Amino acid sequence: MSLLQTAEQIKTMQIRGAGKIAREAAAALRDHAENLPEHGLSVFFSAMEDAADILLATRPTAVSLPNAVHQVLRGLSSAKTEEEARTLVKNQADAFITSSNEAVRKIAEICAARIKDGMTIMTHCNSKAALAGILLAKEQGKTISVIATEVRPWNQGRLTIQTLNDHEIPTTYIVDSAVRTFMKEADLVIVGADAVTVKGAVVNKIGTSQIALAAHEARKNVLVAAETYKFAPQTILGKHIEIEERPASEVLPDDAAEKLPFVTVRNPVFDVTPARYIDLIVTEAGAVPPEAAYTIMQNHLGFDMKDYFPEKS
Amino acid sequence: MSLLQTAEQIKTMQIRGAGKIAREAAAALRDHAENLPEHGLSVFFSAMEDAADILLATRPTAVSLPNAVHQVLRGLSSAKTEEEARTLVKNQADAFITSSNEAVRKIAEICAARIKDGMTIMTHCNSKAALAGILLAKEQGKTISVIATEVRPWNQGRLTIQTLNDHEIPTTYIVDSAVRTFMKEADLVIVGADAVTVKGAVVNKIGTSQIALAAHEARKNVLVAAETYKFAPQTILGKHIEIEERPASEVLPDDAAEKLPFVTVRNPVFDVTPARYIDLIVTEAGAVPPEAAYTIMQNHLGFDMKDYFPEKS
Amino acid sequence: MSLLQTAEQIKTMQIRGAGKIAREAAAALRDHAENLPEHGLSVFFSAMEDAADILLATRPTAVSLPNAVHQVLRGLSSAKTEEEARTLVKNQADAFITSSNEAVRKIAEICAARIKDGMTIMTHCNSKAALAGILLAKEQGKTISVIATEVRPWNQGRLTIQTLNDHEIPTTYIVDSAVRTFMKEADLVIVGADAVTVKGAVVNKIGTSQIALAAHEARKNVLVAAETYKFAPQTILGKHIEIEERPASEVLPDDAAEKLPFVTVRNPVFDVTPARYIDLIVTEAGAVPPEAAYTIMQNHLGFDMKDYFPEKS
Amino acid sequence: MSLLQTAEQIKTMQIRGAGKIAREAAAALRDHAENLPEHGLSVFFSAMEDAADILLATRPTAVSLPNAVHQVLRGLSSAKTEEEARTLVKNQADAFITSSNEAVRKIAEICAARIKDGMTIMTHCNSKAALAGILLAKEQGKTISVIATEVRPWNQGRLTIQTLNDHEIPTTYIVDSAVRTFMKEADLVIVGADAVTVKGAVVNKIGTSQIALAAHEARKNVLVAAETYKFAPQTILGKHIEIEERPASEVLPDDAAEKLPFVTVRNPVFDVTPARYIDLIVTEAGAVPPEAAYTIMQNHLGFDMKDYFPEKS
Amino acid sequence: MSLLQTAEQIKTMQIRGAGKIAREAAAALRDHAENLPEHGLSVFFSAMEDAADILLATRPTAVSLPNAVHQVLRGLSSAKTEEEARTLVKNQADAFITSSNEAVRKIAEICAARIKDGMTIMTHCNSKAALAGILLAKEQGKTISVIATEVRPWNQGRLTIQTLNDHEIPTTYIVDSAVRTFMKEADLVIVGADAVTVKGAVVNKIGTSQIALAAHEARKNVLVAAETYKFAPQTILGKHIEIEERPASEVLPDDAAEKLPFVTVRNPVFDVTPARYIDLIVTEAGAVPPEAAYTIMQNHLGFDMKDYFPEKS
Amino acid sequence: MSLLQTAEQIKTMQIRGAGKIAREAAAALRDHAENLPEHGLSVFFSAMEDAADILLATRPTAVSLPNAVHQVLRGLSSAKTEEEARTLVKNQADAFITSSNEAVRKIAEICAARIKDGMTIMTHCNSKAALAGILLAKEQGKTISVIATEVRPWNQGRLTIQTLNDHEIPTTYIVDSAVRTFMKEADLVIVGADAVTVKGAVVNKIGTSQIALAAHEARKNVLVAAETYKFAPQTILGKHIEIEERPASEVLPDDAAEKLPFVTVRNPVFDVTPARYIDLIVTEAGAVPPEAAYTIMQNHLGFDMKDYFPEKS
Repeated sequence: MSLLQTAEQIKTMQIRGAGKIAREAAAALRDHAENLPEHGLSVFFSAMEDAADILLATRPTAVSLPNAVHQVLRGLSSAKTEEEARTLVKNQADAFITSSNEAVRKIAEICAARIKDGMTIMTHCNSKAALAGILLAKEQGKTISVIATEVRPWNQGRLTIQTLNDHEIPTTYIVDSAVRTFMKEADLVIVGADAVTVKGAVVNKIGTSQIALAAHEARKNVLVAAETYKFAPQTILGKHIEIEERPASEVLPDDAAEKLPFVTVRNPVFDVTPARYIDLIVTEAGAVPPEAAYTIMQNHLGFDMKDYFPEKS
Repeated sequence: MSLLQTAEQIKTMQIRGAGKIAREAAAALRDHAENLPEHGLSVFFSAMEDAADILLATRPTAVSLPNAVHQVLRGLSSAKTEEEARTLVKNQADAFITSSNEAVRKIAEICAARIKDGMTIMTHCNSKAALAGILLAKEQGKTISVIATEVRPWNQGRLTIQTLNDHEIPTTYIVDSAVRTFMKEADLVIVGADAVTVKGAVVNKIGTSQIALAAHEARKNVLVAAETYKFAPQTILGKHIEIEERPASEVLPDDAAEKLPFVTVRNPVFDVTPARYIDLIVTEAGAVPPEAAYTIMQNHLGFDMKDYFPEKS
Repeated sequence: MSLLQTAEQIKTMQIRGAGKIAREAAAALRDHAENLPEHGLSVFFSAMEDAADILLATRPTAVSLPNAVHQVLRGLSSAKTEEEARTLVKNQADAFITSSNEAVRKIAEICAARIKDGMTIMTHCNSKAALAGILLAKEQGKTISVIATEVRPWNQGRLTIQTLNDHEIPTTYIVDSAVRTFMKEADLVIVGADAVTVKGAVVNKIGTSQIALAAHEARKNVLVAAETYKFAPQTILGKHIEIEERPASEVLPDDAAEKLPFVTVRNPVFDVTPARYIDLIVTEAGAVPPEAAYTIMQNHLGFDMKDYFPEKS
Repeated sequence: MSLLQTAEQIKTMQIRGAGKIAREAAAALRDHAENLPEHGLSVFFSAMEDAADILLATRPTAVSLPNAVHQVLRGLSSAKTEEEARTLVKNQADAFITSSNEAVRKIAEICAARIKDGMTIMTHCNSKAALAGILLAKEQGKTISVIATEVRPWNQGRLTIQTLNDHEIPTTYIVDSAVRTFMKEADLVIVGADAVTVKGAVVNKIGTSQIALAAHEARKNVLVAAETYKFAPQTILGKHIEIEERPASEVLPDDAAEKLPFVTVRNPVFDVTPARYIDLIVTEAGAVPPEAAYTIMQNHLGFDMKDYFPEKS
Repeated sequence: MSLLQTAEQIKTMQIRGAGKIAREAAAALRDHAENLPEHGLSVFFSAMEDAADILLATRPTAVSLPNAVHQVLRGLSSAKTEEEARTLVKNQADAFITSSNEAVRKIAEICAARIKDGMTIMTHCNSKAALAGILLAKEQGKTISVIATEVRPWNQGRLTIQTLNDHEIPTTYIVDSAVRTFMKEADLVIVGADAVTVKGAVVNKIGTSQIALAAHEARKNVLVAAETYKFAPQTILGKHIEIEERPASEVLPDDAAEKLPFVTVRNPVFDVTPARYIDLIVTEAGAVPPEAAYTIMQNHLGFDMKDYFPEKS
Repeated sequence: MSLLQTAEQIKTMQIRGAGKIAREAAAALRDHAENLPEHGLSVFFSAMEDAADILLATRPTAVSLPNAVHQVLRGLSSAKTEEEARTLVKNQADAFITSSNEAVRKIAEICAARIKDGMTIMTHCNSKAALAGILLAKEQGKTISVIATEVRPWNQGRLTIQTLNDHEIPTTYIVDSAVRTFMKEADLVIVGADAVTVKGAVVNKIGTSQIALAAHEARKNVLVAAETYKFAPQTILGKHIEIEERPASEVLPDDAAEKLPFVTVRNPVFDVTPARYIDLIVTEAGAVPPEAAYTIMQNHLGFDMKDYFPEKS
């Protein structure tokens, strides 16, 4: 698959999920580098820069995407030869992919440890890391069941119940509006994340924040499965995470919309869950309270204020 | 339309909305009575009883249905002739329909009074009474806008935005999961009701309770438009309002469901919003706090404990 | 049993529970009246007045006691003969006892209706009305279980678990401190009441208010079983319900206390649960939200402000 | 004092407080009626109508004003002679004033009953009824102290501390911003009301709602002293209580304001405290929970929906 | 006292309190090492391993126990001679005991600083560190008083009031159910801890969480006194702290229990207080908000994820 | 201006605001050092010590003052000559002033990033850092408006609206009591800080905590602009931040107060806003959740427990 194809699939949500997007982007950069004809180092640099820009333009919210691109290309400019540059991209892409998959495995172990025998877990959307924890708990022999939402407008809940069914986990499938009704039957909520801000707020699939609110109202714990590369250090500088808004036609067919000139469809893909409704954020570096996001950013993302506020000369 | 057809349309949700169901049931009883061949009073009684049972079996939650049937048939057994009985049914049916429509008009006036110029109102599902208030506010020359939800799985939100569009009210259409995100832009929530319990809890379309929760979290007022015949005096005796659960296939097509033996679709149609998240219940007898439901029942529904707890002989 | 014995047993808590105290006091007055030697009407009046005073002095909090005394003796002063007076006391005492027992039966029916199959109910202390509802639910064939507290310092929980055990209801017995831990396993809380104030606050066994608080925190409903004669109309005038404080020795043996001159034992028997943590108050006149206490007082206790604020002459 | 003078003094807040305004308006109408030269009944009618209009135009928020005018003039049109009309106005004005003063006395008794020995009461603004309760508690021999706010921009707190000082009640005087800090030292909050809505929300001096919020946060009770003629039955119809906004110059001198073209002073005089932060509303008909406002309106203000929604002809 | 005796006394709660258990276990290991006959290094190793296992099996919840054992025995395997091993155990045991006692002293200083003159402090159970702070405040000349709970089923409150009495601190002794009633009179809550999780939740004597909930409801601060060795880094991996459940007979005598086949006694010894109800956790490294637990673990307990997730080979 | 003059102006609030006080104090020390006649090193030391004491005695709450003094004088005792000492004071004072001004610039950048186009910001008092963020947002071309409070008793709001007016930012000016009413129109609250405690509580101008409470009630975010030298590491040791109480005459003129012997004016200048009502604390080291205060103190203020708890010898 070419880099353009990958970019297109990310944009059209054939490739979905913040972790998957990151890994596929890394692979696309690697393959792109491998397939570039030899035209000298400066051409290579400029081609990779273009490639990065194409990928970054696909979806604005998931911080995993720029984090992945940055990790794959970092140090590139100091390469002395085209060969060296190509190898560096390849190695860093592979390393990112491996460590990303490894992170999911560690997160799954921690999530599974939080799941007790007999629990019913509510989940939303189709988070690889969150699901991995649930599947592992099942694998460990725990008797568990799941409540999964439909997740309009893309119905990613269908993917989730397919996976849960394949692993023979009894699952209840509900519309998004039924969350508060079924919260009484849940013991724990586990969801993924597209971005985590410095105050421990979690940007995730639209609907997550009202699930967390309903969980809080009923004294149920909320776990967020989030690899450290989903933490957004730019929020330390007050930057907002841009919430992607996708085409209206995903919600209302264009022909129907046309006949309704006074109606505007709004289709934000994510919402923001405040830290006070979250119990733990589970990263590959351990489970931490959301208020520790700043510490995670410092320990794992090398955030340095000096990069952002250059000293006056 | 025959009574059986009406019953079928109520069951399949071609006729929808607690108020409309009540009026159509009243009309069906009236027409049924008119069309029954003359076979003597006892046959008439028994035929009307059967008719009532057929209607009552269609949908369990909306208390407006038994209330309507009761108001149309009350005193029937004391009729002396078939003609007298037929006339009584006709008169009582017409009276019910008239007063039900009148109630909507009064409720609309009160709701419209609560809507200030410049307000954005969030609504859910397709309540005739709630919409009537919004349309009247527009008619009164107020500049307003509306946020309307999709309302899975039946997408009644489409009907709502059609109506709002026809009245040239700027409307934002969102998926059900986006309620908490858009609550910040709303000034007021107005919804309808299928039943009101003695403690002022409101049974309404699934999703209403999480909207009310999100409104409460953001200090936004929630109005419930509910004719007095939606109040359920049986809750004074501790009776639960049965929450109708409709076919799984409304949420997940049968062929998909068949391949997912570990997945159960749950499709309750209503949820219960506690009184503490409701500001006012607007009835044709005035706007009252939800805690006044007991008083409304006493004043307007003639609830008498003696009907329920006969003295020991 | 003589009236003095009854008074003593109420004081020493051999006779316990607001309803039982009321019924026993009514019976004691009746028997006292029956056994008084004939000495003429004025002696009878004065003897009954003394009897009333003795009973009223036993325990200050339960409003059922003065309510019972009042109902048994009301209109007494208009009796023309000693015989007539004696009969009036007897009849009114029997009527009170019968209607009190009847009230328990009706309350039990309503409470049982609120209990769904499969529910776990948490209860506190040893309320006859609350237990009657639980037992009736069991009798109706529902599979239920109960969590019962120990209820220091009198351990009335032991009586409760004895009753539940005798009816073969699976019961978990916990110390009072474990309420919040076990709240997660409860579906419903049912307790009794010693008094209900005009704002719907419930005076009941110490510990009730923290159970209700923990229930609220976990979105669990709280039912209070309370006969209408437990409502305290004097609170409409701002009167406080006096909270009885019993001997320190019930909590700490006197010999231990003597050695601890800097330690004061405080032993209030009741606490006050605010209306906002209560779902429904279940009376023999129906289940009502706590905020309807004022209406209950007006409908059932004939409260009239004129009795309290005589017009200036 | 002429009616115009009274109207002017109400407008300029020399006459202040919802109760006082009502009584002074009643007296002004009475005196106006008495002083009108004899010109025949129709001239008298029209003069009184003009007088009413002048008074009603002075301040929009306090519902006591129209209630008073209405009670003084009701039935006037059926008077047969000028003399009869004059007498009717006089009698009804005197009756209103007497019953208004009587109401304050009853409210004070109830409030005083809620004040326990040793309590510290926080109050805001200068409510006659609220203060009467505090003074009566002192008179009853209770040791109490008060925390009183400054009440910008009119500093009515100065009047309050003068009264409290005159009655030798130890008083702490604080700026309005210090409410939350001193809430820890208060045991009870008592304030007055300018209007009470059907849902039990209380319209009172700006700042009341944040005092009530801070009281709620710290589990302190809030009493509102409100004569029944402050209840606003028009809110049953959804009508808003208009919040009076007074001149900017009360907050910022005109000369300062002139130099600040980008600055707008907003000076609303009242705010709205929601029922959930209020414990009891104390009326001359007893203390009731705010949710009973609807019942108070029905019992004491003769609200009838038919007056508002005339049947269609 | 032999190691077996110490183990027995820990198990039967003659030795109680997470800090004391830790110190006694360290001393037992030291004495055990000293008293072991010389049989060569490998026998010594194995004997100490057995000793550790015996101690660890006594009580599951307090993380101080394994932390102490680990600190006393760490590095043991690299000892070259039996003598060296014995000395290492002795030195490390003494060091642990000294630093544990030192920690209590530092925590007491911080807690005492938080106690202002005139305060009433509520405490629960019998925490050495919490009490040390209270006693120090008294020693510093502050006028303070304490409210202490009974702490069923072991009545550790009796120990607490003995200590407070001995230091002439006026103390109110209440049953556990009376916490919410007396919270109004408390200015501050200070309790100990058996374990602290990564999210700042505190595992402490059953009842602590409902005290903290009641404190939160009344805007009262909660301090938790916890040495850093009570922090449980395994919770970073999602591990649950096992809540010890002690014999039923501590709550209900066996002979009573036998006659109640439908009754199950549940006797968990600890509960979990969420971080949001805790103001500060006071450690020997300073007072920190509960959300800083992760930082404390990293700074003071040397938690390293690599110990738990070995790299794949 | 002499050091004594600076001290006097700080005391009388001619120099105001925690940041400004710190910079002026640093400048005063520098100028004082420069102007001291040459009398040898020990005289210089002692003169600077006296100067520090005079400054520290001016206002007790703002921790910026001792932090500034400490930074200006640190290492002074190791100076070998008077000249060296003088230079050291000058350099360190200049460095402090520069970095303090720089901090304001960085904080402003972060705050401005949080302000979105179209937002209305509520602010309280006259914080240089908070205002700098607002002005920068305006400078960046965003359309914004501000709600500013009066800030009794010093009316610092007048300074704020002057600044906002000068920058042509539309501003609404309200009395302090109107905060909850206008919170509905605000999108964001930004305030300054005088001190930040280890638990993230913010000490700021009286009234801040009730603004934050009202913001929390309405789901509005609160930003606190606070340079790192406002963090108070002594709170790690449990030390309270002393809340300055200024003269009664600022609130009530002395002549009025004299006539009110039962009235005590209380005039605390600051209050304490708990972390749970604060969204982000914006420092020059980035925006962090309030719970990260401990981390900020460790990273930026070099707090070391050993300074406070010397090892026993």
